[in-house]
Amino acid sequence: MKGPSRAIGRLPIARWSDAGLVRGRDSLVIEEPMEIRVRHRSDGVASPSVQTIAVTMRTPGHDFELAAGFLFTEGIIRGRESITEITYCTSGDSVQQYNVVEVRLASDVRIDVDRLTRHFYATSSCGICGKASLDAIEVLGCEILSGDDPQVSGDLLRSIPDRLREHQSVFQSTGGCHGAALFDVEGTCAGAAEDVGRHNAVDKVVGRALLSEGGLGQGRILAISGRGSFEIMQKAVMARIPIVVAVGAPSTLAVEFAQRFGVTLVGFAGPAGYNVYSGPERIDAGP
Amino acid sequence: MKGPSRAIGRLPIARWSDAGLVRGRDSLVIEEPMEIRVRHRSDGVASPSVQTIAVTMRTPGHDFELAAGFLFTEGIIRGRESITEITYCTSGDSVQQYNVVEVRLASDVRIDVDRLTRHFYATSSCGICGKASLDAIEVLGCEILSGDDPQVSGDLLRSIPDRLREHQSVFQSTGGCHGAALFDVEGTCAGAAEDVGRHNAVDKVVGRALLSEGGLGQGRILAISGRGSFEIMQKAVMARIPIVVAVGAPSTLAVEFAQRFGVTLVGFAGPAGYNVYSGPERIDAGP
Repeated sequence: MKGPSRAIGRLPIARWSDAGLVRGRDSLVIEEPMEIRVRHRSDGVASPSVQTIAVTMRTPGHDFELAAGFLFTEGIIRGRESITEITYCTSGDSVQQYNVVEVRLASDVRIDVDRLTRHFYATSSCGICGKASLDAIEVLGCEILSGDDPQVSGDLLRSIPDRLREHQSVFQSTGGCHGAALFDVEGTCAGAAEDVGRHNAVDKVVGRALLSEGGLGQGRILAISGRGSFEIMQKAVMARIPIVVAVGAPSTLAVEFAQRFGVTLVGFAGPAGYNVYSGPERIDAGP
Repeated sequence: MKGPSRAIGRLPIARWSDAGLVRGRDSLVIEEPMEIRVRHRSDGVASPSVQTIAVTMRTPGHDFELAAGFLFTEGIIRGRESITEITYCTSGDSVQQYNVVEVRLASDVRIDVDRLTRHFYATSSCGICGKASLDAIEVLGCEILSGDDPQVSGDLLRSIPDRLREHQSVFQSTGGCHGAALFDVEGTCAGAAEDVGRHNAVDKVVGRALLSEGGLGQGRILAISGRGSFEIMQKAVMARIPIVVAVGAPSTLAVEFAQRFGVTLVGFAGPAGYNVYSGPERIDAGP
Protein backbone atom coordinates (compact mmCIF):
# COMPACT_ATOMS: atom_id res chain seq x y z
CA MET A 1 0.00 0.00 0.00
CA LYS A 2 1.19 3.46 -0.90
CA GLY A 3 -0.34 6.86 -0.57
CA PRO A 4 -1.79 8.79 2.32
CA SER A 5 -4.21 7.37 4.81
CA ARG A 6 -5.86 10.64 5.69
CA ALA A 7 -9.21 10.00 7.30
CA ILE A 8 -9.60 12.88 9.74
CA GLY A 9 -9.44 16.63 9.13
CA ARG A 10 -9.32 19.38 11.74
CA LEU A 11 -11.49 22.40 11.05
CA PRO A 12 -12.31 25.52 13.07
CA ILE A 13 -15.77 25.51 14.62
CA ALA A 14 -17.91 27.51 17.01
CA ARG A 15 -19.80 25.47 19.62
CA TRP A 16 -22.77 27.10 21.32
CA SER A 17 -24.04 25.50 24.54
CA ASP A 18 -25.26 26.55 27.97
CA ALA A 19 -21.64 27.49 28.66
CA GLY A 20 -21.86 30.08 25.88
CA LEU A 21 -19.65 30.23 22.82
CA VAL A 22 -16.50 28.15 22.62
CA ARG A 23 -14.28 28.45 19.56
CA GLY A 24 -12.04 25.56 18.75
CA ARG A 25 -11.13 22.94 16.23
CA ASP A 26 -13.21 19.85 15.56
CA SER A 27 -12.24 16.50 14.06
CA LEU A 28 -14.23 15.74 10.92
CA VAL A 29 -14.23 12.68 8.75
CA ILE A 30 -12.60 13.44 5.39
CA GLU A 31 -14.75 12.98 2.30
CA GLU A 32 -13.09 13.12 -1.12
CA PRO A 33 -14.05 11.73 -4.52
CA MET A 34 -12.15 8.74 -5.86
CA GLU A 35 -12.27 7.74 -9.48
CA ILE A 36 -11.89 4.04 -10.29
CA ARG A 37 -10.46 3.28 -13.73
CA VAL A 38 -9.76 -0.04 -15.38
CA ARG A 39 -7.14 -0.70 -18.05
CA HIS A 40 -8.29 -3.63 -20.13
CA ARG A 41 -8.37 -5.12 -23.62
CA SER A 42 -11.49 -5.23 -25.74
CA ASP A 43 -12.19 -7.99 -28.22
CA GLY A 44 -10.66 -7.24 -31.62
CA VAL A 45 -8.68 -4.26 -30.35
CA ALA A 46 -4.91 -4.58 -30.06
CA SER A 47 -4.08 -1.95 -27.47
CA PRO A 48 -5.61 -1.76 -23.99
CA SER A 49 -8.05 1.01 -23.24
CA VAL A 50 -8.62 2.91 -19.98
CA GLN A 51 -12.15 3.40 -18.79
CA THR A 52 -13.65 5.24 -15.84
CA ILE A 53 -15.93 2.81 -14.03
CA ALA A 54 -17.14 4.91 -11.12
CA VAL A 55 -16.55 7.96 -9.00
CA THR A 56 -17.31 7.41 -5.35
CA MET A 57 -17.23 9.89 -2.48
CA ARG A 58 -15.01 8.17 0.05
CA THR A 59 -12.73 8.61 3.04
CA PRO A 60 -9.10 8.31 1.88
CA GLY A 61 -7.26 5.19 3.00
CA HIS A 62 -7.37 1.59 1.74
CA ASP A 63 -7.96 3.03 -1.72
CA PHE A 64 -6.60 0.02 -3.61
CA GLU A 65 -8.73 -2.31 -1.49
CA LEU A 66 -11.74 -0.10 -2.20
CA ALA A 67 -11.12 -0.28 -5.95
CA ALA A 68 -10.63 -4.04 -5.93
CA GLY A 69 -13.61 -4.61 -3.66
CA PHE A 70 -15.89 -2.40 -5.74
CA LEU A 71 -15.02 -4.18 -8.99
CA PHE A 72 -15.59 -7.53 -7.30
CA THR A 73 -18.84 -6.82 -5.43
CA GLU A 74 -20.35 -5.13 -8.47
CA GLY A 75 -19.65 -8.21 -10.59
CA ILE A 76 -17.15 -6.50 -12.91
CA ILE A 77 -14.34 -8.91 -12.09
CA ARG A 78 -14.61 -12.51 -10.92
CA GLY A 79 -11.69 -12.72 -8.53
CA ARG A 80 -8.17 -11.77 -7.48
CA GLU A 81 -6.69 -13.34 -10.61
CA SER A 82 -8.44 -10.74 -12.79
CA ILE A 83 -6.16 -8.01 -11.41
CA THR A 84 -2.50 -7.65 -12.39
CA GLU A 85 -1.71 -4.27 -10.82
CA ILE A 86 -3.34 -1.39 -8.94
CA THR A 87 -1.74 2.07 -9.01
CA TYR A 88 -2.53 5.68 -8.32
CA CYS A 89 -2.72 7.76 -11.48
CA THR A 90 -0.05 10.23 -10.40
CA SER A 91 0.54 12.12 -13.63
CA GLY A 92 -1.91 14.88 -12.68
CA ASP A 93 -1.22 17.67 -10.27
CA SER A 94 -0.24 16.86 -6.72
CA VAL A 95 -3.57 17.77 -5.13
CA GLN A 96 -5.37 15.16 -7.15
CA GLN A 97 -2.83 12.41 -7.45
CA TYR A 98 -4.25 10.15 -4.77
CA ASN A 99 -7.85 10.41 -5.95
CA VAL A 100 -7.60 8.34 -9.12
CA VAL A 101 -6.93 4.62 -8.90
CA GLU A 102 -6.22 2.53 -11.96
CA VAL A 103 -6.79 -1.21 -11.90
CA ARG A 104 -4.95 -3.12 -14.62
CA LEU A 105 -6.84 -6.24 -15.59
CA ALA A 106 -5.31 -9.52 -16.78
CA SER A 107 -5.13 -9.86 -20.55
CA ASP A 108 -7.81 -12.53 -20.66
CA VAL A 109 -10.37 -10.50 -18.72
CA ARG A 110 -13.20 -9.05 -20.77
CA ILE A 111 -15.59 -6.59 -19.22
CA ASP A 112 -18.98 -5.70 -20.62
CA VAL A 113 -18.68 -1.94 -20.95
CA ASP A 114 -22.19 -1.62 -22.34
CA ARG A 115 -23.65 -3.30 -19.29
CA LEU A 116 -21.82 -0.90 -17.00
CA THR A 117 -23.40 2.10 -18.65
CA ARG A 118 -26.86 0.60 -18.32
CA HIS A 119 -28.67 0.43 -15.02
CA PHE A 120 -28.41 -2.93 -13.32
CA TYR A 121 -32.04 -2.94 -12.32
CA ALA A 122 -33.86 -1.64 -15.38
CA THR A 123 -34.59 -5.08 -16.73
CA SER A 124 -38.18 -5.13 -17.87
CA SER A 125 -39.83 -3.10 -20.59
CA CYS A 126 -42.05 -1.18 -18.23
CA GLY A 127 -41.13 -1.15 -14.64
CA ILE A 128 -39.03 -2.53 -11.93
CA CYS A 129 -39.77 -3.96 -8.56
CA GLY A 130 -37.94 -5.63 -5.74
CA LYS A 131 -38.34 -9.02 -7.39
CA ALA A 132 -36.94 -7.70 -10.69
CA SER A 133 -33.99 -6.27 -8.77
CA LEU A 134 -33.29 -9.66 -7.24
CA ASP A 135 -33.61 -11.31 -10.67
CA ALA A 136 -31.12 -8.82 -12.08
CA ILE A 137 -28.67 -9.51 -9.28
CA GLU A 138 -28.90 -13.21 -9.99
CA VAL A 139 -28.09 -12.53 -13.64
CA LEU A 140 -25.12 -10.49 -12.45
CA GLY A 141 -23.58 -13.61 -11.02
CA CYS A 142 -24.82 -13.93 -7.45
CA GLU A 143 -25.13 -17.53 -6.43
CA ILE A 144 -27.23 -18.92 -3.64
CA LEU A 145 -25.09 -19.75 -0.63
CA SER A 146 -25.41 -23.20 0.89
CA GLY A 147 -27.23 -23.14 4.16
CA ASP A 148 -25.40 -25.59 6.41
CA ASP A 149 -22.11 -23.87 7.12
CA PRO A 150 -20.59 -22.23 9.07
CA GLN A 151 -22.03 -22.24 12.60
CA VAL A 152 -21.81 -19.18 14.77
CA SER A 153 -22.67 -18.88 18.44
CA GLY A 154 -25.26 -16.51 19.82
CA ASP A 155 -22.71 -15.20 22.29
CA LEU A 156 -20.44 -14.17 19.44
CA LEU A 157 -23.30 -12.38 17.69
CA ARG A 158 -24.00 -10.38 20.85
CA SER A 159 -20.34 -9.36 21.05
CA ILE A 160 -20.02 -8.24 17.43
CA PRO A 161 -20.81 -4.52 18.00
CA ASP A 162 -18.15 -4.28 20.73
CA ARG A 163 -15.63 -6.12 18.55
CA LEU A 164 -16.43 -3.84 15.61
CA ARG A 165 -16.13 -0.72 17.75
CA GLU A 166 -12.48 -1.56 18.48
CA HIS A 167 -11.84 -0.81 14.81
CA GLN A 168 -13.86 2.41 14.62
CA SER A 169 -11.30 4.99 15.70
CA VAL A 170 -12.34 7.47 13.02
CA PHE A 171 -15.95 7.27 14.16
CA GLN A 172 -14.88 7.78 17.74
CA SER A 173 -13.03 10.98 16.77
CA THR A 174 -15.57 12.36 14.30
CA GLY A 175 -18.97 10.77 14.88
CA GLY A 176 -19.41 10.73 11.13
CA CYS A 177 -18.18 7.45 9.76
CA HIS A 178 -19.42 3.94 9.02
CA GLY A 179 -17.48 0.84 9.98
CA ALA A 180 -17.32 -2.64 8.50
CA ALA A 181 -15.30 -5.69 9.51
CA LEU A 182 -14.91 -9.35 8.65
CA PHE A 183 -14.75 -11.92 11.45
CA ASP A 184 -14.31 -15.66 11.50
CA VAL A 185 -16.72 -17.77 13.54
CA GLU A 186 -14.35 -17.64 16.51
CA GLY A 187 -14.61 -13.83 16.50
CA THR A 188 -11.13 -13.14 15.14
CA CYS A 189 -11.09 -10.02 13.00
CA ALA A 190 -9.93 -10.62 9.43
CA GLY A 191 -9.98 -6.97 8.40
CA ALA A 192 -11.79 -3.74 9.18
CA ALA A 193 -12.34 -0.40 7.50
CA GLU A 194 -14.11 2.91 7.99
CA ASP A 195 -15.63 5.27 5.44
CA VAL A 196 -18.20 8.05 5.08
CA GLY A 197 -20.00 5.64 2.76
CA ARG A 198 -21.33 2.40 4.23
CA HIS A 199 -20.92 0.64 0.86
CA ASN A 200 -17.31 1.83 0.62
CA ALA A 201 -16.49 0.44 4.08
CA VAL A 202 -17.81 -2.93 2.92
CA ASP A 203 -15.89 -2.76 -0.37
CA LYS A 204 -12.69 -1.93 1.53
CA VAL A 205 -12.89 -4.99 3.79
CA VAL A 206 -13.92 -7.26 0.93
CA GLY A 207 -11.15 -5.86 -1.28
CA ARG A 208 -8.61 -6.34 1.48
CA ALA A 209 -9.55 -9.99 1.85
CA LEU A 210 -9.59 -10.43 -1.93
CA LEU A 211 -6.04 -9.04 -2.29
CA SER A 212 -4.66 -10.94 0.72
CA GLU A 213 -2.81 -14.20 0.72
CA GLY A 214 -5.75 -16.10 2.14
CA GLY A 215 -8.36 -14.56 -0.11
CA LEU A 216 -12.05 -14.61 0.57
CA GLY A 217 -13.18 -17.91 2.02
CA GLN A 218 -16.32 -19.32 3.47
CA GLY A 219 -16.84 -19.01 7.19
CA ARG A 220 -16.84 -15.29 7.41
CA ILE A 221 -19.07 -12.81 9.17
CA LEU A 222 -19.54 -9.29 7.79
CA ALA A 223 -20.30 -6.79 10.55
CA ILE A 224 -21.61 -3.33 9.69
CA SER A 225 -22.05 -0.42 12.07
CA GLY A 226 -25.36 0.85 10.78
CA ARG A 227 -28.36 -0.42 8.91
CA GLY A 228 -28.61 -3.29 6.44
CA SER A 229 -29.74 -2.26 2.97
CA PHE A 230 -30.19 -4.05 -0.34
CA GLU A 231 -26.86 -2.70 -1.54
CA ILE A 232 -24.95 -4.16 1.41
CA MET A 233 -26.58 -7.57 0.98
CA GLN A 234 -25.75 -7.55 -2.73
CA LYS A 235 -22.09 -6.92 -1.93
CA ALA A 236 -22.05 -9.65 0.74
CA VAL A 237 -23.52 -12.22 -1.63
CA MET A 238 -21.17 -11.29 -4.47
CA ALA A 239 -18.33 -11.85 -2.00
CA ARG A 240 -19.97 -15.12 -0.83
CA ILE A 241 -20.06 -14.01 2.80
CA PRO A 242 -22.69 -16.20 4.48
CA ILE A 243 -23.43 -14.18 7.64
CA VAL A 244 -24.18 -10.45 7.88
CA VAL A 245 -24.57 -8.78 11.27
CA ALA A 246 -25.93 -5.23 11.41
CA VAL A 247 -25.85 -3.11 14.54
CA GLY A 248 -28.95 -1.35 13.22
CA ALA A 249 -32.10 -2.25 11.31
CA PRO A 250 -32.40 -4.01 7.97
CA SER A 251 -34.83 -2.99 5.21
CA THR A 252 -37.49 -5.29 3.78
CA LEU A 253 -35.54 -5.77 0.56
CA ALA A 254 -32.39 -6.67 2.49
CA VAL A 255 -34.36 -9.44 4.22
CA GLU A 256 -35.91 -10.67 0.96
CA PHE A 257 -32.45 -10.67 -0.59
CA ALA A 258 -30.95 -12.61 2.32
CA GLN A 259 -33.74 -15.19 2.18
CA ARG A 260 -33.43 -15.66 -1.57
CA PHE A 261 -29.66 -16.02 -1.60
CA GLY A 262 -29.28 -18.02 1.60
CA VAL A 263 -27.57 -15.39 3.74
CA THR A 264 -27.95 -15.35 7.51
CA LEU A 265 -29.04 -11.80 8.35
CA VAL A 266 -28.90 -10.57 11.94
CA GLY A 267 -29.98 -7.07 12.98
CA PHE A 268 -30.11 -4.94 16.13
CA ALA A 269 -27.20 -6.97 17.49
CA GLY A 270 -25.88 -6.01 20.89
CA PRO A 271 -25.06 -7.36 24.35
CA ALA A 272 -28.78 -7.65 25.16
CA GLY A 273 -29.60 -9.84 22.17
CA TYR A 274 -30.15 -9.89 18.43
CA ASN A 275 -32.85 -10.34 15.79
CA VAL A 276 -32.62 -13.09 13.18
CA TYR A 277 -34.27 -12.20 9.87
CA SER A 278 -32.95 -14.99 7.69
CA GLY A 279 -30.86 -18.15 7.86
CA PRO A 280 -31.25 -19.22 11.52
CA GLU A 281 -29.70 -22.62 10.73
CA ARG A 282 -26.20 -21.11 10.93
CA ILE A 283 -26.78 -19.88 14.49
CA ASP A 284 -26.15 -21.97 17.59
CA ALA A 285 -28.12 -19.85 20.03
CA GLY A 286 -27.18 -22.10 22.90
CA PRO A 287 -29.10 -22.90 26.06
CA MET B 1 -50.97 12.39 -5.00
CA LYS B 2 -51.98 8.94 -6.09
CA GLY B 3 -50.53 5.55 -5.39
CA PRO B 4 -49.70 3.71 -2.21
CA SER B 5 -47.80 5.18 0.68
CA ARG B 6 -46.35 1.96 1.94
CA ALA B 7 -43.38 2.66 4.15
CA ILE B 8 -43.46 -0.15 6.69
CA GLY B 9 -43.51 -3.92 6.18
CA ARG B 10 -44.16 -6.60 8.81
CA LEU B 11 -41.88 -9.61 8.64
CA PRO B 12 -41.47 -12.65 10.90
CA ILE B 13 -38.37 -12.60 13.08
CA ALA B 14 -36.75 -14.48 15.91
CA ARG B 15 -35.39 -12.37 18.75
CA TRP B 16 -32.80 -13.92 21.04
CA SER B 17 -32.17 -12.24 24.38
CA ASP B 18 -31.63 -13.13 28.02
CA ALA B 19 -35.32 -14.07 28.04
CA GLY B 20 -34.58 -16.74 25.45
CA LEU B 21 -36.17 -17.00 22.04
CA VAL B 22 -39.21 -14.94 21.16
CA ARG B 23 -40.81 -15.36 17.76
CA GLY B 24 -42.85 -12.50 16.41
CA ARG B 25 -43.22 -9.99 13.67
CA ASP B 26 -41.04 -6.92 13.32
CA SER B 27 -41.71 -3.62 11.55
CA LEU B 28 -39.15 -2.96 8.84
CA VAL B 29 -38.73 0.03 6.59
CA ILE B 30 -39.69 -0.86 3.03
CA GLU B 31 -36.99 -0.49 0.38
CA GLU B 32 -37.98 -0.75 -3.30
CA PRO B 33 -36.38 0.54 -6.48
CA MET B 34 -37.98 3.47 -8.26
CA GLU B 35 -37.17 4.35 -11.83
CA ILE B 36 -37.38 8.02 -12.82
CA ARG B 37 -38.12 8.65 -16.49
CA VAL B 38 -38.50 11.90 -18.37
CA ARG B 39 -40.55 12.46 -21.49
CA HIS B 40 -39.02 15.34 -23.43
CA ARG B 41 -38.28 16.71 -26.86
CA SER B 42 -34.81 16.76 -28.35
CA ASP B 43 -33.63 19.43 -30.76
CA GLY B 44 -34.51 18.59 -34.34
CA VAL B 45 -36.70 15.62 -33.37
CA ALA B 46 -40.45 15.94 -33.84
CA SER B 47 -41.75 13.40 -31.35
CA PRO B 48 -40.91 13.33 -27.66
CA SER B 49 -38.69 10.59 -26.34
CA VAL B 50 -38.76 8.82 -22.99
CA GLN B 51 -35.51 8.38 -21.13
CA THR B 52 -34.61 6.64 -17.88
CA ILE B 53 -32.70 9.13 -15.76
CA ALA B 54 -32.09 7.16 -12.60
CA VAL B 55 -33.06 4.16 -10.53
CA THR B 56 -33.00 4.83 -6.82
CA MET B 57 -33.63 2.45 -3.94
CA ARG B 58 -36.30 4.24 -1.93
CA THR B 59 -39.11 3.87 0.58
CA PRO B 60 -42.45 4.15 -1.26
CA GLY B 61 -44.45 7.30 -0.62
CA HIS B 62 -44.11 10.85 -1.96
CA ASP B 63 -42.86 9.30 -5.18
CA PHE B 64 -43.83 12.24 -7.40
CA GLU B 65 -42.15 14.64 -5.01
CA LEU B 66 -39.06 12.42 -5.05
CA ALA B 67 -38.95 12.47 -8.85
CA ALA B 68 -39.42 16.24 -9.06
CA GLY B 69 -36.94 16.89 -6.27
CA PHE B 70 -34.32 14.62 -7.80
CA LEU B 71 -34.54 16.28 -11.22
CA PHE B 72 -34.29 19.69 -9.57
CA THR B 73 -31.46 19.07 -7.09
CA GLU B 74 -29.41 17.27 -9.73
CA GLY B 75 -29.69 20.28 -12.04
CA ILE B 76 -31.69 18.47 -14.73
CA ILE B 77 -34.62 20.92 -14.55
CA ARG B 78 -34.55 24.54 -13.48
CA GLY B 79 -37.88 24.80 -11.69
CA ARG B 80 -41.52 23.89 -11.32
CA GLU B 81 -42.37 25.35 -14.74
CA SER B 82 -40.24 22.70 -16.44
CA ILE B 83 -42.75 19.99 -15.42
CA THR B 84 -46.17 19.59 -17.06
CA GLU B 85 -47.24 16.27 -15.56
CA ILE B 86 -46.02 13.45 -13.32
CA THR B 87 -47.59 9.99 -13.57
CA TYR B 88 -46.96 6.41 -12.63
CA CYS B 89 -46.17 4.22 -15.61
CA THR B 90 -49.01 1.80 -15.00
CA SER B 91 -48.94 -0.20 -18.22
CA GLY B 92 -46.73 -2.88 -16.76
CA ASP B 93 -47.86 -5.61 -14.42
CA SER B 94 -49.51 -4.71 -11.17
CA VAL B 95 -46.56 -5.56 -8.93
CA GLN B 96 -44.40 -3.00 -10.64
CA GLN B 97 -46.82 -0.26 -11.50
CA TYR B 98 -45.95 2.07 -8.65
CA ASN B 99 -42.19 1.76 -9.11
CA VAL B 100 -41.83 3.73 -12.33
CA VAL B 101 -42.51 7.46 -12.37
CA GLU B 102 -42.62 9.44 -15.60
CA VAL B 103 -42.08 13.19 -15.56
CA ARG B 104 -43.35 15.01 -18.64
CA LEU B 105 -41.30 18.11 -19.34
CA ALA B 106 -42.56 21.33 -20.90
CA SER B 107 -42.03 21.53 -24.65
CA ASP B 108 -39.35 24.21 -24.36
CA VAL B 109 -37.22 22.24 -21.89
CA ARG B 110 -34.07 20.73 -23.31
CA ILE B 111 -32.02 18.33 -21.26
CA ASP B 112 -28.43 17.42 -21.94
CA VAL B 113 -28.65 13.65 -22.20
CA ASP B 114 -24.94 13.31 -22.86
CA ARG B 115 -24.11 15.10 -19.67
CA LEU B 116 -26.34 12.76 -17.69
CA THR B 117 -24.43 9.75 -18.89
CA ARG B 118 -21.12 11.31 -17.93
CA HIS B 119 -19.98 11.58 -14.35
CA PHE B 120 -20.59 14.97 -12.84
CA TYR B 121 -17.24 15.03 -11.13
CA ALA B 122 -14.86 13.66 -13.71
CA THR B 123 -13.86 17.04 -15.05
CA SER B 124 -10.13 17.06 -15.51
CA SER B 125 -7.98 14.97 -17.79
CA CYS B 126 -6.26 13.09 -15.00
CA GLY B 127 -7.79 13.15 -11.63
CA ILE B 128 -10.37 14.64 -9.43
CA CYS B 129 -10.29 16.19 -6.03
CA GLY B 130 -12.62 17.94 -3.67
CA LYS B 131 -11.91 21.28 -5.32
CA ALA B 132 -12.65 19.85 -8.77
CA SER B 133 -15.92 18.47 -7.42
CA LEU B 134 -16.89 21.92 -6.16
CA ASP B 135 -15.93 23.46 -9.51
CA ALA B 136 -18.10 20.91 -11.30
CA ILE B 137 -21.04 21.69 -9.04
CA GLU B 138 -20.68 25.39 -9.82
CA VAL B 139 -20.77 24.58 -13.53
CA LEU B 140 -23.90 22.54 -12.87
CA GLY B 141 -25.73 25.70 -11.87
CA CYS B 142 -25.18 26.12 -8.14
CA GLU B 143 -25.06 29.77 -7.22
CA ILE B 144 -23.52 31.26 -4.12
CA LEU B 145 -26.21 32.18 -1.60
CA SER B 146 -26.19 35.66 -0.16
CA GLY B 147 -25.01 35.71 3.41
CA ASP B 148 -27.21 38.23 5.18
CA ASP B 149 -30.60 36.57 5.31
CA PRO B 150 -32.46 34.94 6.98
CA GLN B 151 -31.71 35.09 10.70
CA VAL B 152 -32.34 32.07 12.88
CA SER B 153 -32.20 31.90 16.67
CA GLY B 154 -29.92 29.60 18.59
CA ASP B 155 -32.90 28.34 20.57
CA LEU B 156 -34.59 27.21 17.37
CA LEU B 157 -31.45 25.38 16.26
CA ARG B 158 -31.37 23.48 19.56
CA SER B 159 -35.01 22.47 19.10
CA ILE B 160 -34.64 21.23 15.51
CA PRO B 161 -33.98 17.54 16.34
CA ASP B 162 -37.11 17.38 18.52
CA ARG B 163 -39.17 19.13 15.84
CA LEU B 164 -37.83 16.77 13.19
CA ARG B 165 -38.55 13.71 15.33
CA GLU B 166 -42.26 14.57 15.33
CA HIS B 167 -42.19 13.69 11.63
CA GLN B 168 -40.16 10.48 11.95
CA SER B 169 -42.89 7.93 12.61
CA VAL B 170 -41.37 5.36 10.24
CA PHE B 171 -38.04 5.62 12.05
CA GLN B 172 -39.77 5.21 15.38
CA SER B 173 -41.40 1.98 14.17
CA THR B 174 -38.46 0.53 12.29
CA GLY B 175 -35.22 2.15 13.46
CA GLY B 176 -34.06 2.07 9.86
CA CYS B 177 -35.02 5.31 8.17
CA HIS B 178 -33.65 8.78 7.55
CA GLY B 179 -35.73 11.90 8.03
CA ALA B 180 -35.61 15.34 6.43
CA ALA B 181 -37.78 18.40 6.93
CA LEU B 182 -37.98 22.03 5.89
CA PHE B 183 -38.67 24.69 8.52
CA ASP B 184 -39.09 28.44 8.35
CA VAL B 185 -37.11 30.62 10.75
CA GLU B 186 -40.01 30.56 13.23
CA GLY B 187 -39.76 26.76 13.39
CA THR B 188 -42.92 26.01 11.41
CA CYS B 189 -42.56 22.83 9.40
CA ALA B 190 -43.02 23.31 5.67
CA GLY B 191 -42.79 19.63 4.79
CA ALA B 192 -41.16 16.42 6.01
CA ALA B 193 -40.31 13.04 4.56
CA GLU B 194 -38.68 9.75 5.50
CA ASP B 195 -36.71 7.32 3.38
CA VAL B 196 -34.12 4.55 3.60
CA GLY B 197 -31.89 6.88 1.59
CA ARG B 198 -30.87 10.16 3.17
CA HIS B 199 -30.63 11.82 -0.26
CA ASN B 200 -34.14 10.60 -1.14
CA ALA B 201 -35.59 12.10 2.03
CA VAL B 202 -34.06 15.45 1.04
CA ASP B 203 -35.33 15.16 -2.54
CA LYS B 204 -38.82 14.38 -1.26
CA VAL B 205 -39.06 17.51 0.88
CA VAL B 206 -37.49 19.69 -1.80
CA GLY B 207 -39.82 18.22 -4.45
CA ARG B 208 -42.84 18.76 -2.25
CA ALA B 209 -41.98 22.43 -1.84
CA LEU B 210 -41.22 22.75 -5.54
CA LEU B 211 -44.61 21.33 -6.53
CA SER B 212 -46.53 23.32 -3.91
CA GLU B 213 -48.35 26.61 -4.38
CA GLY B 214 -45.73 28.57 -2.48
CA GLY B 215 -42.74 26.94 -4.13
CA LEU B 216 -39.25 27.02 -2.74
CA GLY B 217 -38.40 30.38 -1.22
CA GLN B 218 -35.62 31.84 0.79
CA GLY B 219 -35.85 31.66 4.55
CA ARG B 220 -35.87 27.93 4.87
CA ILE B 221 -33.99 25.52 7.08
CA LEU B 222 -33.27 21.97 5.93
CA ALA B 223 -33.07 19.55 8.87
CA ILE B 224 -31.62 16.08 8.39
CA SER B 225 -31.65 13.26 10.90
CA GLY B 226 -28.15 11.95 10.34
CA ARG B 227 -24.86 13.16 9.02
CA GLY B 228 -24.12 15.96 6.56
CA SER B 229 -22.36 14.82 3.40
CA PHE B 230 -21.28 16.50 0.17
CA GLU B 231 -24.33 15.10 -1.59
CA ILE B 232 -26.77 16.65 0.88
CA MET B 233 -25.07 20.04 0.66
CA GLN B 234 -25.19 19.90 -3.12
CA LYS B 235 -28.92 19.29 -3.04
CA ALA B 236 -29.47 22.09 -0.52
CA VAL B 237 -27.57 24.59 -2.64
CA MET B 238 -29.34 23.56 -5.85
CA ALA B 239 -32.61 24.21 -3.99
CA ARG B 240 -31.21 27.51 -2.64
CA ILE B 241 -31.80 26.53 0.98
CA PRO B 242 -29.53 28.77 3.07
CA ILE B 243 -29.42 26.85 6.36
CA VAL B 244 -28.73 23.15 6.87
CA VAL B 245 -29.00 21.59 10.33
CA ALA B 246 -27.71 18.05 10.84
CA VAL B 247 -28.39 16.03 13.97
CA GLY B 248 -25.10 14.24 13.31
CA ALA B 249 -21.63 15.09 12.03
CA PRO B 250 -20.70 16.74 8.74
CA SER B 251 -17.79 15.64 6.55
CA THR B 252 -14.90 17.90 5.58
CA LEU B 253 -16.20 18.26 2.03
CA ALA B 254 -19.65 19.21 3.28
CA VAL B 255 -18.05 22.05 5.27
CA GLU B 256 -15.91 23.18 2.33
CA PHE B 257 -19.00 23.11 0.14
CA ALA B 258 -21.02 25.14 2.65
CA GLN B 259 -18.27 27.73 2.96
CA ARG B 260 -17.85 28.07 -0.79
CA PHE B 261 -21.54 28.41 -1.55
CA GLY B 262 -22.54 30.54 1.43
CA VAL B 263 -24.60 27.95 3.30
CA THR B 264 -24.96 28.04 7.08
CA LEU B 265 -24.05 24.53 8.22
CA VAL B 266 -24.87 23.41 11.75
CA GLY B 267 -24.02 19.96 13.08
CA PHE B 268 -24.49 17.93 16.27
CA ALA B 269 -27.60 20.00 16.99
CA GLY B 270 -29.56 19.16 20.13
CA PRO B 271 -31.01 20.61 23.31
CA ALA B 272 -27.52 20.94 24.80
CA GLY B 273 -26.13 23.04 21.96
CA TYR B 274 -24.89 22.96 18.39
CA ASN B 275 -21.73 23.33 16.30
CA VAL B 276 -21.45 26.00 13.60
CA TYR B 277 -19.20 25.00 10.70
CA SER B 278 -20.09 27.70 8.20
CA GLY B 279 -22.16 30.89 7.86
CA PRO B 280 -22.48 32.05 11.50
CA GLU B 281 -23.83 35.42 10.32
CA ARG B 282 -27.30 33.91 9.91
CA ILE B 283 -27.42 32.79 13.54
CA ASP B 284 -28.62 34.98 16.38
CA ALA B 285 -27.17 32.97 19.23
CA GLY B 286 -28.69 35.30 21.79
CA PRO B 287 -27.34 36.48 25.12
